[in-house]
Amino acid sequence: MRTITDTAAMQAQGLAWRRGGLRVGLVPTMGFLHTGHTSLMDLARRHCDVLVASIFVNPIQFGLNEDLDQYPRDLEGDAAKCQAHGVDLLFMPSDFYPPGFRTSVRVAQLTEILCGVDRPEHFDGVTSVVARFFGVIQPSVAVFGEKDFQQLAVIRRMVRDLAMPVEILSGPLVRQADGIALSSRNVNLSAVDRQRALSLSGALRELRAQVQAGERDLAKLVARARAQVDCDRLEYLELRDGDDLELLSELRAPARAFVAARYGETRLIDNLSVL
Amino acid sequence: MRTITDTAAMQAQGLAWRRGGLRVGLVPTMGFLHTGHTSLMDLARRHCDVLVASIFVNPIQFGLNEDLDQYPRDLEGDAAKCQAHGVDLLFMPSDFYPPGFRTSVRVAQLTEILCGVDRPEHFDGVTSVVARFFGVIQPSVAVFGEKDFQQLAVIRRMVRDLAMPVEILSGPLVRQADGIALSSRNVNLSAVDRQRALSLSGALRELRAQVQAGERDLAKLVARARAQVDCDRLEYLELRDGDDLELLSELRAPARAFVAARYGETRLIDNLSVL
Repeated sequence: MRTITDTAAMQAQGLAWRRGGLRVGLVPTMGFLHTGHTSLMDLARRHCDVLVASIFVNPIQFGLNEDLDQYPRDLEGDAAKCQAHGVDLLFMPSDFYPPGFRTSVRVAQLTEILCGVDRPEHFDGVTSVVARFFGVIQPSVAVFGEKDFQQLAVIRRMVRDLAMPVEILSGPLVRQADGIALSSRNVNLSAVDRQRALSLSGALRELRAQVQAGERDLAKLVARARAQVDCDRLEYLELRDGDDLELLSELRAPARAFVAARYGETRLIDNLSVL
Repeated sequence: MRTITDTAAMQAQGLAWRRGGLRVGLVPTMGFLHTGHTSLMDLARRHCDVLVASIFVNPIQFGLNEDLDQYPRDLEGDAAKCQAHGVDLLFMPSDFYPPGFRTSVRVAQLTEILCGVDRPEHFDGVTSVVARFFGVIQPSVAVFGEKDFQQLAVIRRMVRDLAMPVEILSGPLVRQADGIALSSRNVNLSAVDRQRALSLSGALRELRAQVQAGERDLAKLVARARAQVDCDRLEYLELRDGDDLELLSELRAPARAFVAARYGETRLIDNLSVL
């Protein structure tokens, strides 16, 4: 596995692969890799000739008072995991944004709901960094996790709207045995909060169980689930269309439940298909 | 010369050329072609294997009260000019934006000066349409005219910031014998306004002559030039850095003068390197 830290060198390599007709796969990450990430690498590996993983804690997708400085890092462990999961090239840019960078890509509407309410500039930072990654690396396929389901929908929309020649694949959310969604941020939870955070996946699973048992009263389902979340601050718990993320006025397939909650400074999200 | 009106077919052709290793050139236009446009085609022709010209009056770069409906059209004449200037494929999309299109590309700062003051959303519409054109056509080189000097600077910045693998070339502004800058909008001027509009290029040329004669008082130069413009409303006449478009506080090279003025509903722009 090679490592590139220079953005111009990465683009030269990406363009050379493209000229050579190779199908390049990309798994962009912010590092501190877990099974959620490596499962995306395994998936990408089956759809490309050359696999690139990137590790870049992207400052422009963090708000001013968010946890950019607390975002956990483990470059050595990350490199070993990439190598073990078939990554050919690890891109860890030290100079990603050019001086005076001032271009942003924005997807309207989809970015103004769910996480976009509490993090108003977050998704602009995500689409802008992903657009630049696509420019630098020239992938034919890029893989994103369904843990960040809204991010996935936003990126799919950007790719469609700007006619970017990149196939977007998604990998399922990965959970620990006790149900908690894998997240690099879990490490920042106290033992007590780690236990309380089980209520997120618990509330979503219980909501799905009630739907499966025949409950169709959307307001009742959501109110019950909200009451089950044990956290410092519940940001949202909503039922939305599983394709376009429109808020559901009545329960119908595809329906997906989304939750975000805070434990001190740590913000966790989860989602589950319920119908 | 082939013509394609279907955006998906255009992208399939663009990707096929790319796989074949061909260097594709693009001259995007809004039609009603004049020598300014065809000079860009001649320039592009020397830098590519396959030349695409597009004609698309892009609605999202027009403001609500602007002249989208009055924008002149002459598809038959345009096609003949493209053919005569080496265009291999004319792309005239009938379905350019997908339903629910909601992605925009924005270059901050550079878009908030000069034409951006009077047309606050104009450049977002330009960068968004150009980004989508690049996605659909996959050009290796794209050519823009220096008549729209600010647009050129904005597009260069977008391409750099998003690491788009497209070389941007520019062609010089083309004037009629009497000095007026060629513009598709000139046809909308009355005979009287057409005559008054000569004062735009006249004021810029006189400003340059004064600089060449040794005048270095920036405020005086600009005030004199403004006084010479005969129009219904002068939007701006400014001296700026010819590279980054920063406002000059003192005269130094590279300096460029920019003017925009209204004649009734018709808005004209011009620019000239003065040092």
